[in-house]
Amino acid sequence: MPDLRKDPIVNRWVVVNVEEPVLPKDYGVVPFVWKGHKDCAFCYGNEHLTPPEIEAISETWRAPNTPGWKVRVVPNKFPALIIEGELDKRAIGMYDVSNGVGAHEVIIDSPHHYKTIAELTDLEVQYMLKIYRSRTLDLRKDRRFKYLLIFKNVGLEAGASLEHGHSQLIALPMVPKNVLDEVRGARHFYEYRERCIFCDMIAYEEENGKERIVTENEDFVSFCPLSSRFSFEIWVIPKEHSMDFGQINDERIKKLAHILKDSLTRLKKVLGEHPYNYIIHTSPVNTDAHPSYHWHIEIMPKLSRVAGFEWGSGFYVVGTPPNIAAKSLREAV
Amino acid sequence: MPDLRKDPIVNRWVVVNVEEPVLPKDYGVVPFVWKGHKDCAFCYGNEHLTPPEIEAISETWRAPNTPGWKVRVVPNKFPALIIEGELDKRAIGMYDVSNGVGAHEVIIDSPHHYKTIAELTDLEVQYMLKIYRSRTLDLRKDRRFKYLLIFKNVGLEAGASLEHGHSQLIALPMVPKNVLDEVRGARHFYEYRERCIFCDMIAYEEENGKERIVTENEDFVSFCPLSSRFSFEIWVIPKEHSMDFGQINDERIKKLAHILKDSLTRLKKVLGEHPYNYIIHTSPVNTDAHPSYHWHIEIMPKLSRVAGFEWGSGFYVVGTPPNIAAKSLREAV
Repeated sequence: MPDLRKDPIVNRWVVVNVEEPVLPKDYGVVPFVWKGHKDCAFCYGNEHLTPPEIEAISETWRAPNTPGWKVRVVPNKFPALIIEGELDKRAIGMYDVSNGVGAHEVIIDSPHHYKTIAELTDLEVQYMLKIYRSRTLDLRKDRRFKYLLIFKNVGLEAGASLEHGHSQLIALPMVPKNVLDEVRGARHFYEYRERCIFCDMIAYEEENGKERIVTENEDFVSFCPLSSRFSFEIWVIPKEHSMDFGQINDERIKKLAHILKDSLTRLKKVLGEHPYNYIIHTSPVNTDAHPSYHWHIEIMPKLSRVAGFEWGSGFYVVGTPPNIAAKSLREAV
Repeated sequence: MPDLRKDPIVNRWVVVNVEEPVLPKDYGVVPFVWKGHKDCAFCYGNEHLTPPEIEAISETWRAPNTPGWKVRVVPNKFPALIIEGELDKRAIGMYDVSNGVGAHEVIIDSPHHYKTIAELTDLEVQYMLKIYRSRTLDLRKDRRFKYLLIFKNVGLEAGASLEHGHSQLIALPMVPKNVLDEVRGARHFYEYRERCIFCDMIAYEEENGKERIVTENEDFVSFCPLSSRFSFEIWVIPKEHSMDFGQINDERIKKLAHILKDSLTRLKKVLGEHPYNYIIHTSPVNTDAHPSYHWHIEIMPKLSRVAGFEWGSGFYVVGTPPNIAAKSLREAV
């Protein structure tokens, strides 16, 4: 019989196929078929094909919008939200409506067209994370923004239309529903138990045989949560309680770069280039934030399709139980 | 500038591209490429390829599991949940866990391999809806079940692995999160205003130029909600307040069959065979249900991919504003 498990933060149920699990080898190792770097706007020499850059990191002096950068941030050419203008909140009948004010930036992870995070050096991943931090610190100065969402889509099935590795940052003028659900869940637990629910999750994994832990270092743990929504879902979370990704220091960025790259490298060794998304979950900004939240990164491989059952219920069906996924990721070295 | 619109029931925001909308013609009319009916377990003569039938409708007498049926219900060969057993709720650390008890049935919509709902007769669609009703009334007798979810996946991208038209019913031992969110939202509005929020939505659409109404009859309206999550999303809703799809009478089933088929036929004329899901949203069963809920069907075409932005925020980006979608559906005759 399958297991029903409830996520303790947002009360989401998942159905885990513990009796006839889909084994890691059943997915097959998918090779990536590159389309090629011709006309790629994210490669060296094509800087003029993107809107003018917002920020970049380079090791030596360079003029903006020329080659030589290590990581580069540009406005999204087809932004979901527009940076200029007033929010102008109003009612249309029973609906709340406002202008689509926000920021939508693209972070070009590295100059390498044919490298995923698994092939970048630790230092290159650090540059990428440093620019995540720098953009979130810069954008929160704009008091219109209440949430800064950093995420990555890899592969067509996960919504990436361009193959050169890139991340995105969307600044939102309101705290989105999914974040509110998590923040409220963490706060509810905190008020009830006077502890952080995420810290409890880490302690639970550490104390219970570590069977769902993928890898860890002094400052971070990478694990497959008991109530994962997706097969091979991985959370990378700081061991020390911290609500805000923006406050991470350089020393911790080094540790985070290493464990993020390590986790994604293991995922690649087990599954090949299956599409995935990762999302940085962090506290809202410019609004009353409760310290019970604990920032982390959720890596969500897209190994099966979300269909009517998931859309209608919010239940998820998980083919590979998280302990089996974690074991194969631990052994992939 | 795009519009930000908030769904008044569950407080979900959507970004609607009102300035440079994706027009209906931009999607292209996708033809369906049939793989064929060879070895199809849902065709006449192959009844032995499915588990023994639970229920069927036929116009003349027939032996179970033989041809001649108009609509046929069988257990899912690969069920997400298992019908036998105890729920056995328990705690694992901070997690709530229970056995995966539930029902998972497949409703074979018609004997026709090469017909979608658009090509069925009104009578055939009535049979399908009657068996939806009959299964939901039968399964609620089992007091373990708290929610009966009826849905349909059409096309590979919407999660359908078999091409012969079929629907699914999953009986769940708890009210799922997405349903709770809706039920609570409707109840909150009702307690505040002493009115049904869905009845208010219908009244708003009727009184405001009907620009988002696709079609209507005496008992039902089919419309594209102002805060649609997906381009060409359509809701089919009874005009008279009713919380429970299971209580629909034969007269209304006739009207529902007609407007559902009409809506899907219009969708097919505008977009061809793009994948979609539809889901019957109705009240929980065997639990305290508040009369403020209002059942309806949500049709969700899958014209774009859900990626990191949607997963991370719960925001949705809508390329075609609902008034433009509704206009093209109204004009498709």
